[in-house]
Parts: sequence; structure tokens; C-alpha cells
Amino acid sequence: MGFRRKLKESIEQNNSLLCVGLDPDVERLPAGMTIAEFNHAIIEATKDLVCAYKPNLAFYEAEGLAGLKALEETLSFVPSNIPVIGDAKRGDIGNTARMYARSMFDVFGFDAVTLNPFLGLDSIEPFMVYSKKGLFLLCRTSNPGAKDFQDLEVDGQPLYEHVAFKALEWNVHANIGLVVGATYVQELARIRQLCPDMPFLIPGVGSQGGDLPQVVKRGTDKSGSNAIINSSRAILYASGGPDFAEAARQAAMNARDGINQYRRTSKRSG
Amino acid sequence: MGFRRKLKESIEQNNSLLCVGLDPDVERLPAGMTIAEFNHAIIEATKDLVCAYKPNLAFYEAEGLAGLKALEETLSFVPSNIPVIGDAKRGDIGNTARMYARSMFDVFGFDAVTLNPFLGLDSIEPFMVYSKKGLFLLCRTSNPGAKDFQDLEVDGQPLYEHVAFKALEWNVHANIGLVVGATYVQELARIRQLCPDMPFLIPGVGSQGGDLPQVVKRGTDKSGSNAIINSSRAILYASGGPDFAEAARQAAMNARDGINQYRRTSKRSG
Repeated sequence: MGFRRKLKESIEQNNSLLCVGLDPDVERLPAGMTIAEFNHAIIEATKDLVCAYKPNLAFYEAEGLAGLKALEETLSFVPSNIPVIGDAKRGDIGNTARMYARSMFDVFGFDAVTLNPFLGLDSIEPFMVYSKKGLFLLCRTSNPGAKDFQDLEVDGQPLYEHVAFKALEWNVHANIGLVVGATYVQELARIRQLCPDMPFLIPGVGSQGGDLPQVVKRGTDKSGSNAIINSSRAILYASGGPDFAEAARQAAMNARDGINQYRRTSKRSG
Repeated sequence: MGFRRKLKESIEQNNSLLCVGLDPDVERLPAGMTIAEFNHAIIEATKDLVCAYKPNLAFYEAEGLAGLKALEETLSFVPSNIPVIGDAKRGDIGNTARMYARSMFDVFGFDAVTLNPFLGLDSIEPFMVYSKKGLFLLCRTSNPGAKDFQDLEVDGQPLYEHVAFKALEWNVHANIGLVVGATYVQELARIRQLCPDMPFLIPGVGSQGGDLPQVVKRGTDKSGSNAIINSSRAILYASGGPDFAEAARQAAMNARDGINQYRRTSKRSG
């Protein structure tokens, strides 16, 4: 099953646009827990509440080989009907991008990845040909530094809009989506206008403080779906104590229900 | 010793601006050889001819945990006086970039890294604070897709020049350099003009076909140094047979001498 369909089904089954970012910071894990144990508990506590999981590879690479082993284990804990997005923001020249695609799709087996588009088409093509996988191109990110380059004006339009146009042009396999931060709602609304049917991966609610009602209204498509709203720290570290899993479940439930409250059709989604 | 000084000394000691890209494609290795064995032989054959080595992480990640183990082994084979650049082109929001910096500098122990600047300052800052390490920001890359975004005109100047300006502005620890492809000599000349003292990492000679005399003339600083000219495939796969190491040595020697021939001062470099 392709990523788009798998995502649609998980959105419907769990009635959720919530994605939990599996970003285990070893300095914040409950005492004595390994990354894999922590992730296992988080997944068990939230698997009926999410449409996707999104491990960011940086948090695993920071622990070296042991961290990447923990990532492999983590992937085995995710129920097979929930898509997993490998958030690695890779981007390299064509010959090298082939290797990254092999790593993300064939070695780790992610259903989708995030990609940095700065190197242009030949850095994306080796991923595009995996037509059943999803590719989320960074368009307008949620961080303060996004303004340094992404907002620069080119022919009267900010650079991130040019990324959106290229994403539309390159979407011949219908497997491209965009990463658009929740912290800039105007930009989110504009990009949704340009790309009405693309899946959006929207980080920046929770710890980063995006305005949820506006994010849901502006970021979803006209059926109130097709947006993956990610929260990491606010769910993983809802409690730092032994009740972290229960607290994560409660935070995820609140996030899911909070999102659904603002969707155009909160029940018959997808 | 900081990266800049280590690089200066390796350039002088080996009278070389050549960097060998350690990008082992398992489909092209001599029969029966592991990645680590192959890299070991390449390093032994070229270590007196280079100013740096540059493993691209994609080629290791493509082999999963075994590949990353081979990368660790490879790093242990490099003589301690030769700087190693981790070519990973990472770029993520501040909180996550800290983790990538930890991975590249503390876990793997690279002397320098390549970074994708598309996410702006907070994606670079966690690396900048490692003041003894080198950071090479992608500025104008060597691939065809570079034109898709990097060449777009902002306020009368291409985007890559804005990256160069930001690199100058952010260079408070004097540890920032730029990646500028060898395949676009005009752009290379212009960026050198803007950043006369920055170290440049220049891929794209060899297989990608950059014009060597022009690259050396335009890419080095006014003393004919401060440029790291990378070749990967043309050296690693100079021969596919059992004589690959000897062929790599010969190709590296030709490349080094070819470069030196066009340097402003080919002897007293650095």
C-alpha cells in the first residue's frame, strides 16, 4: 500500500491528524530507561490516537551506533498500519541522494521522509522514483532562522512559494508533500492555497507555540484533512516521572481532540 | 588544534589542496572487499598526497548499522594530522541541530562538517559554538539542480551570494567556510571575491568535470591556498581491479600535481 493511502486510512481509523515526533533526548528520559524502552512505552500509549509517527534521526545519531540500533528497534514497535515518517531533512547531489534514499526506504523502511530542497531536482529525483513512499519537502519551516533565506523575495514572491511551485511541478508520481511550520499561519494559509491537494507535515504546535485553531483551519485541505500535525516534546515529556506514558497519552488525546475540534468535518475525515 | 590550523599544516606538509572523498559504493568495490578494508587501502595509498579526507555519510548509511560501523573504523585509519570533513549536509531547527552537532563532532569526532543553510541561523549556531571545528555551508553546489533555487535572484543578486553574505556575518568564531562547486567557475570566482579569506570546499572536479586550471585559479585565495579540492570517484575507482590502490595513488598524485601546477605559489603554500 502506498503512503498516501496508508495515511488516509490511519487518519480515518484513529480519527486523528496528530503525529507524535519520536525525538528521545537522553537527558530528558525517565531515570534508567533506554531510548528503545521509552519509545516503546510512548508508542503503546498513543498508537490509537495518532495518524503517524515521526522519528527525527538527529536524536538517534547523537547516540552513535547504539542510537541507530534503538531507532531500528523503535520502528519494529510501530503497528504496521501506522505510517512512519523518517525526519532526516536529507539533501545531496543525485549520485549521493540515491544512497540516502536507499538508507531511508530500503534499510530503515520508512513510509515517508523529509527532504531539504536547496540542491534542487536531482537531489529529490532518487526519492521520487519510490512512488509508493512519501516525500515532504521543506517549504517554510517553523524556526526563527526560516526568515534568513526562505522568506527572501524572488520575482515578487518569497522563496518558499517557489519551493511550493517546484513541488507541484515535480509531483509526477503524486508522492510529494510539504513541510510547513505551524508558527507562521499566514504563510501556511498561502501555501495551502497554492497546493490544495498536497499532504502537509506541520511541526511547531506544542513546545514551539503555533496557534492550533488557525493551524488546523489553514493547514488542512477542504475536507479538513491531509495535514499531519506534529507534536514532539509536549507529548514525550508531558511528565518526567514514572507516569510519563500515561501523561503522554493524556497529552496526545488532548492534542488530537483539540485538533479535531477545529477541523471542517471532525468525524468523517480522510 | 583547531581545524583551520590543522588544515593549513596538512596543506603545507603534503603540498596539496587535494581532498579524497571516501564514498564507497558497495557495487563498485573490488570483489570480496569490505568498505573498511577498501577505505583502509585508499587511505594508505594516498595519505601523503592529500590535505583532507571527506567521507560522505550517505554511502555509509546506505549500508545500515554495518556501514556506520565501517565509517567509525575508517576514521581510525586516518593519520591524526590529516583533517576529516564529515560530509552530511545536515540542517534542522536549533533544538535538533544540537543533536546533529553532537553526532558529528562528539560521537564521530569529525574535524569539520558540511551544513545546509536553508533553515537559517539557528540551524547553524549549535555547530558554530564548536569553535575549533570547521563548518562548510552549502553555497553554490556542483549539481545541475543547483540552479533551481540557488541561482534565483534576490535584490539583484543570486541566492547563493546571500548565503555567502550570511556566512560572513555569522563567522564570529572564524570557523565557517563554504561549499562551492567546481562546475560553475564564474560563480566560484564571484564567491571568492566576496569571501577572500574563507576556506572553500570545492567538489566537482574529476567525474563531475570541473575545469581544473580555472577552478584552482578562481577558487584559491590570494596566496594560492585555502581551498580544498575534492575528488571522489575518479580516485576511488581509477581501477576496478586488484590494483585499485596503486591506481588510486597514481590518480591522486596526478590530481595533486595538476592542482599545484595552477596555484599562484605551488611550493610555499598554506
